[in-house]
Amino acid sequence: MFKEILENVRKASPLIHNITNYVTVNDCANILLACGASPIMADDWEEVEEITSICGGLNINIGTLNQRIICSMILAGKKSNELDHPVILDPVGAGASKLRTETSGKLLDQVKLTVVRGNISEIRTLALGKGTTKGVDADIADRITEENIDNAVRFAKDFSGKIKAVVAITGAIDIVADSEKAYIIRNGHPMMSKITGTGCMLTAMTAAYLVANRGCSLEATAAATCAMGLCGELALDRLSKNDGNSTYRNYIIDEVFNLDGEKLEKGAKYEVR
Amino acid sequence: MFKEILENVRKASPLIHNITNYVTVNDCANILLACGASPIMADDWEEVEEITSICGGLNINIGTLNQRIICSMILAGKKSNELDHPVILDPVGAGASKLRTETSGKLLDQVKLTVVRGNISEIRTLALGKGTTKGVDADIADRITEENIDNAVRFAKDFSGKIKAVVAITGAIDIVADSEKAYIIRNGHPMMSKITGTGCMLTAMTAAYLVANRGCSLEATAAATCAMGLCGELALDRLSKNDGNSTYRNYIIDEVFNLDGEKLEKGAKYEVR
Amino acid sequence: MFKEILENVRKASPLIHNITNYVTVNDCANILLACGASPIMADDWEEVEEITSICGGLNINIGTLNQRIICSMILAGKKSNELDHPVILDPVGAGASKLRTETSGKLLDQVKLTVVRGNISEIRTLALGKGTTKGVDADIADRITEENIDNAVRFAKDFSGKIKAVVAITGAIDIVADSEKAYIIRNGHPMMSKITGTGCMLTAMTAAYLVANRGCSLEATAAATCAMGLCGELALDRLSKNDGNSTYRNYIIDEVFNLDGEKLEKGAKYEVR
Repeated sequence: MFKEILENVRKASPLIHNITNYVTVNDCANILLACGASPIMADDWEEVEEITSICGGLNINIGTLNQRIICSMILAGKKSNELDHPVILDPVGAGASKLRTETSGKLLDQVKLTVVRGNISEIRTLALGKGTTKGVDADIADRITEENIDNAVRFAKDFSGKIKAVVAITGAIDIVADSEKAYIIRNGHPMMSKITGTGCMLTAMTAAYLVANRGCSLEATAAATCAMGLCGELALDRLSKNDGNSTYRNYIIDEVFNLDGEKLEKGAKYEVR
Repeated sequence: MFKEILENVRKASPLIHNITNYVTVNDCANILLACGASPIMADDWEEVEEITSICGGLNINIGTLNQRIICSMILAGKKSNELDHPVILDPVGAGASKLRTETSGKLLDQVKLTVVRGNISEIRTLALGKGTTKGVDADIADRITEENIDNAVRFAKDFSGKIKAVVAITGAIDIVADSEKAYIIRNGHPMMSKITGTGCMLTAMTAAYLVANRGCSLEATAAATCAMGLCGELALDRLSKNDGNSTYRNYIIDEVFNLDGEKLEKGAKYEVR
Repeated sequence: MFKEILENVRKASPLIHNITNYVTVNDCANILLACGASPIMADDWEEVEEITSICGGLNINIGTLNQRIICSMILAGKKSNELDHPVILDPVGAGASKLRTETSGKLLDQVKLTVVRGNISEIRTLALGKGTTKGVDADIADRITEENIDNAVRFAKDFSGKIKAVVAITGAIDIVADSEKAYIIRNGHPMMSKITGTGCMLTAMTAAYLVANRGCSLEATAAATCAMGLCGELALDRLSKNDGNSTYRNYIIDEVFNLDGEKLEKGAKYEVR
C-alpha cells in the first residue's frame, strides 16, 4: 500500500504552503521537490490566506517563532480548514519556552489539524500543556524504548482521540497513530540526529503525502515516516570514510529524490498495533 | 563577447546588496562568491540605503515578503537609482497573491529597474497587472514553446520598451530582451526545476554581471542566463546513479565556480532575433 | 591541550542558543552538530530569556539585523550574564552601516562578552567606534600580514584588556588574544573566503568550545579557530577537479564532524606571543 501512496505524490505533484522556520527552510523546499511536490513559502498575514488557497495543504512549523508569523499561522490554518485542506503541525521546541508551548496550544485549539508530528517531549508537552524539552531534542527521560513502547502507543492513541488528528512521534522508534491503530516504525538511523532538520523535512514531506492521499491520513503519515527513515538508511550506505553530517544531509535528500514505490514497500519496517 | 563579460565579473569582483527571501538566500550568497562577486544581505530600513551605497548593485527578490522589507526594497531601490547602480527585480510568485502582484507593481513604478527576471507567468502578471501563477512555478498554459515563441519574443520586447528595462523570461526556453533585440537561449535542463532557487540564484548572479558590465545590460543578462543554464548542463553530466537534487544543487554552484570565459563562449546556445 | 578542549565539547554536548542571521543559519546549526554540540535558534523577545536559560551559552551574530532581534540580543545577553553563561559576539559588517556599528557598540556596553570574533575591519570598528568595511569582508588596507603582525597583536591585546573579553581576529593570519597572551594561528586556506559563512560557523563553534571549557576562554577560542582552519585545509585536500565552493562547504562541515583531538593537536599551527 505504501507503494501506491508514494506514487500518488509523484502523480499529483501537490503544492504545499509552508510557514516554517528559517533554519531548515531550504532543506524543506528541496525535500518537497525531491518527493515530487512543489513548495511555496509565505508567512505574511497579508497573503497567507490567498497563498494557502492556491495550495493543496499547509505545513506549520514553529521552529523560529515571532508574533507576526503566529498570526499568519492561525489565519492560514483557518483558511485551510475552510477549504478542507490537510494541515500538519510541527511543534518544534514545545516545552522549551512558554511562547512555543502556548502557540502550539493555540494552534491545537483554533485550527483543525490533520497531523501533529514531533519528538516525544514536544508531543507530551502538547498533551499535558507543559513539559521539558532539551532545546529542540527530546528529553532523555521521555525517550521511547522497547520497554516503554506499550505505554507510548497507548499515549499516542489517546492523544490522537482527544485532538482528532493523527499523532506522529518520531525518534529512535517512531509511532504513528490515530485513536484506534498505531504504526510502530523502525526505519532510520541515529546519525540522522546529527543533521539539523530531519524532523522539519519529514513534516514537510508528510504534508505532500497527505494532500496526495486524502482519506487515509494515518497510512500516508506512516508511509512518509518510513520513507524518511529508509532514505536515512540508504544515504548512510553511501557515506565514505571522510564524509560527515553535511554530505549525509545531501544524500538523504538525494535518496528521497530517487525513492520509488517498490523500494519503499520493500524497505519499510513497521508493525501495526 | 560572453567571454569578456564573464571575465569582467571576476576582475571587478562587485559587491552586491541582496534583499531576498530566506529560502534560497544561502545559495544566492554562494553563487555570487562562485562567480567572483561578493554578497551582502541587509533588509532593515535603517541600514539599506547605507549598505546599498557601498555596493555596486542591488538584487531585489520578493520570495518571502513582509511589510518591513517591502519598505526596505523601495528605499534601497531609490538610493540605488540616485547612485546610478544597476537594480534587478525577481518578482517571485507575482500573480500568486495580491501582496506579491502589488509589490511588484509598486517596485516597477517607484524604482527604475535595469532588469526584471522571472518565469513567464510572473512577467505576464507584471505586464497585465494580474495573472495566474502556480505558486512559484509558471502556469502550464503560459509556457513558452517552439510554437508560441514568436509571440513571446514580441511580448518581451514590448514589455521591455514599456518599462525601459531588460526583460528576462526563463523556463525551458529563455528569452532575454530589450525593446529591439532578443536573445533566445536554449541552455539548461528540466532537472534544474527540481531544485529550489535556480531562478533566485540566476537573478543574484545577473546583478553581478550587470555591475561588472555597465552599458551592456542586455548582453550581460544574456551571458548570465547562458552561464546558469550551461552550468546546469555540466552539473548534470557529473551526476551518478544515486545522486539527486541536493547533490545537483551543489554541483551547479561548483560549475559556476569553475566556469571560465572559454567554456561559456563555447557552451552558450542562443540565437538573436 | 587542544586535544582535551575538543574532547570536552564532544563529552559535554553543550546546547547553544543562537541569535543569528538567516543567510548562514543552517550551516551554523550543522557545524554545531558536527562538533558535538546542539543548536537552538530563537530570536523573539518573548522567548529568548527562557531559551537562553536552558542553554549553556549564547551566540550573537548581527549578519542580518532588525529592531526586533536587536532587542532580543540585549535581553538574551543580559540573561546569559545573570546566569554566568559564555556569550560570543560576531559583529558581521560592523563599519558597513551605522546600524551595525551602533548595535555592536550597544552590545559591548550592555552585555558582558566572553569573546568577540570578527575580521580585522570589524574589530577595528568596534575599537574605534567607526570604521570601513568592504561589505562583510575586511578592508584590504586593514589586512594582517607578516609585516604588520606585531602591531596587530598589540592592538588585539589592548582591545581585549579594554573590553575584558577574548578578541579573535580572523583572516589569512588569525590572532586570538586576551590582554596578556596572543595566539597567532596559521591554519586555513584562502579558498575558505569563497564560501559564505566560514566566519559565522567559527563563531557558533567557538560558543560550544567555550561552554565545554569554562575557565580557559582564550585557549578554547584558539582551539576552535585552529580546528576551523585545519578543517578548511583537510577539506581542500578532498576536492577534485570539478569541485567548487559548494562542495567545499560540505566537506568543511564533514571534516569538523570527523575531527578528533589527535588530529587537532597534530594539525594546529600556532605560536604564542
